[in-house]
Amino acid sequence: MPEVTADMTITLDGYASGRGQSREKPFGDMDTDRLHGWMFDHRDENRVEAEAITEAGAYIMGRKMFSAEEGEWDLEWTGWWGEDPPYHAPTFVLCHRPRASIEMEGGTTFHFVTDGIEAALERAREAAGERTVSIAGGPSVLNQYLDAGLVDELRLHVSPFLAGGGERIFDGVRDLDLKPHSSRSTPWVTHLVYRR
Amino acid sequence: MPEVTADMTITLDGYASGRGQSREKPFGDMDTDRLHGWMFDHRDENRVEAEAITEAGAYIMGRKMFSAEEGEWDLEWTGWWGEDPPYHAPTFVLCHRPRASIEMEGGTTFHFVTDGIEAALERAREAAGERTVSIAGGPSVLNQYLDAGLVDELRLHVSPFLAGGGERIFDGVRDLDLKPHSSRSTPWVTHLVYRR
Repeated sequence: MPEVTADMTITLDGYASGRGQSREKPFGDMDTDRLHGWMFDHRDENRVEAEAITEAGAYIMGRKMFSAEEGEWDLEWTGWWGEDPPYHAPTFVLCHRPRASIEMEGGTTFHFVTDGIEAALERAREAAGERTVSIAGGPSVLNQYLDAGLVDELRLHVSPFLAGGGERIFDGVRDLDLKPHSSRSTPWVTHLVYRR
Repeated sequence: MPEVTADMTITLDGYASGRGQSREKPFGDMDTDRLHGWMFDHRDENRVEAEAITEAGAYIMGRKMFSAEEGEWDLEWTGWWGEDPPYHAPTFVLCHRPRASIEMEGGTTFHFVTDGIEAALERAREAAGERTVSIAGGPSVLNQYLDAGLVDELRLHVSPFLAGGGERIFDGVRDLDLKPHSSRSTPWVTHLVYRR
């Protein structure tokens, strides 16, 4: 079966997004320039780790990572990423309300899964074939997969600042069966890889 | 002036000690075998980082790191470390009640400082001469020094498990002026160095 990976950029105090998410502010009050500067402003120095994020054969994300809102769907909304999202692969959105799949440009198709994290993983594995399935986020979805022991490789990108509040990685995760595999520092971020 | 360093071993979720500290359990309910295994059970593979912890010219620690209890001093108590503590240098204990200095074997002398973190640092700098001053802990004392911007080099040793509660590094620290300097993984721990 394909390996399950997850990438997440976090602050030194473990936050992956801030408080008060909305369509206008997908990361809420988090300073996204500081959070993601390594990936956008300093991509050359962090190219290997940045490119690895979009190499999976299928993705899983939470409803809030797709739309910020909960409740009834706004069918006009197709995510934050424009016509050609960076995933270029089937992307399974965990949610409570069914919705028809959305085929975007470049190979990304959003599928909406209402029967839980294990069902979503099963569908993503099928879609990925021999390739990797990546848990794209947000933090609460990643925490559910970590708690269920379903992540084989966790790649944390630690940006050197403090958020002081928001959604935190590992909240509610009871334990981990992952060991340090590798680490690399650049002046803007520390890349940590944990593997089963 | 000598550089101020700090070493702290933390869990992946950022805890440096557990809940319910006591003389019998200096780290409370934290699993210290997992927390400190890198240093004791796998010292060969982590020798450089382990030895660097005790290379400073003076140390600063909080009262709870010295004695667990608060309130009146038990003058029989001279710390957890036996007759020859591993510091081998003047060690300044932050506290609220004065107490005479205690000269231990091997060069460690505990001095008790009642006038705050900056006064303690000033005395430690004097005692260290050309050498480094190390903030030994616990987490709440380190957080005070971090918040005051007084730490030049922070060395985190991240043990790969989750504690889920206890005393956390960075709690109450408003921001950091530290950048990633280096990182190294062994199968038991990830060593992260941040510098001003």
